[in-house]
Amino acid sequence: MKSIGIGILGFGTVGAGVVEGLLKNGDLIAARTGIQPVIRAIADLDLESDRGIEVDRALLTTDAAAVIRDPEIQVIVELIGGTGIARTLVLDALKAGKSVVTANKALLAEHGPELYAAAEQYQADLLFEASTGGGIPIIRALREGLSGNRIEEICGILNGTCNYILTRMENEKLPFDQVLREAQEAGYAEAEPSLDIDGFDTAHKAVVLATLAFGRSINMDDVAVQGIREVSATDIEYAAELGYRIKLLAVIKQNGHGVEIGVYPALITRQHMLASVSHAFNAVLVRGDIVGETLYYGQGAGRAATASAVIGDIVDAARNHVGETPYRIPAFVPCSPEVALRAPEDIVTRYYLRLSLKDEPGIFALVAQMLAGHNINIASVMQKEARTCGAVPVIILTHSACEGEFRAALAEIDALDQVLAPTVCYRIEDFT
Amino acid sequence: MKSIGIGILGFGTVGAGVVEGLLKNGDLIAARTGIQPVIRAIADLDLESDRGIEVDRALLTTDAAAVIRDPEIQVIVELIGGTGIARTLVLDALKAGKSVVTANKALLAEHGPELYAAAEQYQADLLFEASTGGGIPIIRALREGLSGNRIEEICGILNGTCNYILTRMENEKLPFDQVLREAQEAGYAEAEPSLDIDGFDTAHKAVVLATLAFGRSINMDDVAVQGIREVSATDIEYAAELGYRIKLLAVIKQNGHGVEIGVYPALITRQHMLASVSHAFNAVLVRGDIVGETLYYGQGAGRAATASAVIGDIVDAARNHVGETPYRIPAFVPCSPEVALRAPEDIVTRYYLRLSLKDEPGIFALVAQMLAGHNINIASVMQKEARTCGAVPVIILTHSACEGEFRAALAEIDALDQVLAPTVCYRIEDFT
Repeated sequence: MKSIGIGILGFGTVGAGVVEGLLKNGDLIAARTGIQPVIRAIADLDLESDRGIEVDRALLTTDAAAVIRDPEIQVIVELIGGTGIARTLVLDALKAGKSVVTANKALLAEHGPELYAAAEQYQADLLFEASTGGGIPIIRALREGLSGNRIEEICGILNGTCNYILTRMENEKLPFDQVLREAQEAGYAEAEPSLDIDGFDTAHKAVVLATLAFGRSINMDDVAVQGIREVSATDIEYAAELGYRIKLLAVIKQNGHGVEIGVYPALITRQHMLASVSHAFNAVLVRGDIVGETLYYGQGAGRAATASAVIGDIVDAARNHVGETPYRIPAFVPCSPEVALRAPEDIVTRYYLRLSLKDEPGIFALVAQMLAGHNINIASVMQKEARTCGAVPVIILTHSACEGEFRAALAEIDALDQVLAPTVCYRIEDFT
Repeated sequence: MKSIGIGILGFGTVGAGVVEGLLKNGDLIAARTGIQPVIRAIADLDLESDRGIEVDRALLTTDAAAVIRDPEIQVIVELIGGTGIARTLVLDALKAGKSVVTANKALLAEHGPELYAAAEQYQADLLFEASTGGGIPIIRALREGLSGNRIEEICGILNGTCNYILTRMENEKLPFDQVLREAQEAGYAEAEPSLDIDGFDTAHKAVVLATLAFGRSINMDDVAVQGIREVSATDIEYAAELGYRIKLLAVIKQNGHGVEIGVYPALITRQHMLASVSHAFNAVLVRGDIVGETLYYGQGAGRAATASAVIGDIVDAARNHVGETPYRIPAFVPCSPEVALRAPEDIVTRYYLRLSLKDEPGIFALVAQMLAGHNINIASVMQKEARTCGAVPVIILTHSACEGEFRAALAEIDALDQVLAPTVCYRIEDFT
C-alpha cells in the first residue's frame, strides 16, 4: 500500500485531536483511499505537556524547519496559529513543494494573497477546510459541490463562543457580562475574549469565505465588524417576543450593486434554520444562483471537529500526491471582475430599533415623523411599560431603507430632549 | 484553454436544467477551473418539445450510443432515469472509459454493485452527487469532507414530495388525500405517486448513502420501508401538541450491534434542526465518530437544484480528465467488515402510540399493565376527549424498548374488546 508522510506543526488542542483521529481511523482511511497516512513528526516548543494521547516520543521535535525539510514528509499540517512564525513556516513548506493543511483563519485573512501566490508559484496544495466552520465541510462545498454556481449570498454563524453566549443569554435571561464570565470559567471563552466577542474571528472567516466565493481579493479592511459586547438581554427578550432571535452573523452578499461584507449582531426570524443553531454550533447558509439556498451545520470549533476537517484535507492532499496532481484545485482563483465594495450607507435593510422615550404625549408622533422624513416605513411597533426612571421602551421594526437614511434619522431622533438614551439599533436579516 | 466535451443523455427537466446552467455559468466554470465545459451532444427520443432554452439543433440526436462513442466527448451525463436503457447506457459509457455523471438513484440502488464494478474495471469516474439530496453536496461531504470519520448515523429527509405533503398537512390541518390531490394538480407530486409517498424513492437514496458511508454492499431488501399514506392529520396535530413533528425519515445507523436501515414516518422534537425542514426542502444529518453531528440542507429536487449537483460532478470529472486521474475517488470502496443487519425486532427506540379506547373505567390500567409486561415504560400520556363514536384517543409516549416487545404488546392490546381501532404507532427519533 502507498503511504503519505505527515508532519504536524503545533501540538496544541487541535494538533492533539488530529494525531488522535489519525491513530483511531488511519486504517479506515487507508481502506477508503488505498493510502496509509503516517505521522512522521510532530513539532512543538512544549514537548512535555500531557495531551491525553500516547505518542511515540521519537516523533516529537522542537525543530519545525527540520520537519519541513524531511523528504519522507509530503504533507505539512500547520496548527500553530497566529500570523508570525506560522506564516514563515507555511511559506517555507509551500516553497519546498509540500502540501500544506492549515486551520489558521487569521493567517489566511491577513496574508492570504501572499500565501495563495506562493501556492500557485510552487504548485503546492494549500488546503484550509478547518479554518472556517470547524468540522463543517463548507470550503469543499463552496469550491467543489457548488462549483457551477455564482455565489450570491453567504450568511454564517461562525463563532461558537458568541453563539454560546447569545444562546445562554436568551434561554436563561442573563446579562452578557455574567454569561461571558461563566463561559470563561467553563473554558468556552478565552481569558482575553476580544477576538471572539468583538467579531474579529468571525471577520477572519468571512474574509476566507468571501475570497473563495467571489474569486476576488478581500481583506479585513473590507469588512465592517461589530461584536456582541453591547447586546443586552433586554433586546434579546424583545426580539423573542416579536418572533426573532439575535445572532452574530457574517453576511456576505454580491449582486449588481456590488459586494457587501459585514459582521454584526442581527435579528433573524425564529422560523429560519439559522435561528435553530444554538450553543457552540456553527452554520453557514450559501445561496447559489442555480442551487438556491443551501445550509451547512455542525460543531464550529473544538479538538475533534476541527481535527475532522484537517484530516479531510490530509486525505485530499494524499490523493493529490499519489495522483501526481498537486494543486488540483487552486487555493485562489481570480474569477470575478473587481466589483466595488458597497458603501455601508447604501446598504438597504430592515431594522429593529429600541427607543427610550420620555413618557409624554406626542413624542412617538415626532419620532414617526422623523423616520418618515427619511423614507423609513414602520412595519410594527411595540410599546412596553417603563422599566427604569420613566424611560418608556418603544420597539420599532421598520421596512427596508438605506443605512445612510437610518443613520441620519437616528441622529435627529437621538438629539431630541425626550429621547433619554441612544437608540439601540440592529439589522433584521430576511434571507429573501 | 483546455476544454471538456459533455454528452447529455435525457433532455427532460433536469437535462434542460443542466444545459441551462452550463450556458449560464460555463465561462465562470472555465475561469475557476481553467477548463471550458462544452456540450457536444444531447440525446433524447423527443427532439421537439420546448424546454424553455435555446439550444443549437445540431447538438440534438436520438442516438445515445453515438454520443457515447463520440471521441470528442469525455463526460456522459445520464439523466434518463429508470433502470432499463439507463443501465445499459451507463455500462456502455463506463466500458468506453468515459466519465459518467448520473442523478439516477433507482439505478444505483438496484444495480449499484454491477455499476461500481464496471467503474473499477474500466477505471472510469462514476459520479452521482445529484442522486441524493438534490442540490445538497451530501455525497461529496460523506466521501471527502468527512473522509476521516467512521459514519455512525445518517438521518435524512430525502423526499421533497413527502415533506411538502406533511408540511401542508400540519400547517393547514388538512387530510393526506386532499393535500396529495392538490400537490398532484400543482405538479409537486406525480400522477402515480407511489414511488414518493410509499417511501421507495427515499429508500433508493438511503441505499446510496448507506453503501457510501459504510463501505459495504447494501440493497433494497435490506431496507424496511414505510411511507406516509397512513399518516393522519390527527396524529400530526397530537404530535405537535407534544412538541414534535412527523417527518418521513431515512434512518441509517451503525454501531456495535450491527447496521440498521429504515425508511418510516417518525416523530422528531421541534427543537431539532431537522424539524425546521419544511415544504420541498431536504436535509441530511450525518454523525461521524470524530466530527460529531453535522447537517446539510437545501432543495432536494427540481430542475435547477439537481442541475447544480450534476454540474458540480461534471467539473469534478473535468478536473480528473485534465489531471489524468480518472477514478480518483472510487465509486465504491469496500472498507467495512460485513457487519450483520440488525433484525427490526431488536431495534431499540421510543414510540408514540395513539390508542382508541372505549370510554370505560379501568381500561387504561389494563393497557399500562400490558406495556409494563413487555418492559415498556410510559414517558407521558395525553388523553383527549372522544371525537368519534365513543372512542377516546389516548396518546402515549414511551421510553425506549425493543421493537419486538412493542409488537408483542400492541398485539395483546389491540386484541382487547375495549380497543376500538388498531393502535397507531410511530417511532420517536431522539438523535442521542
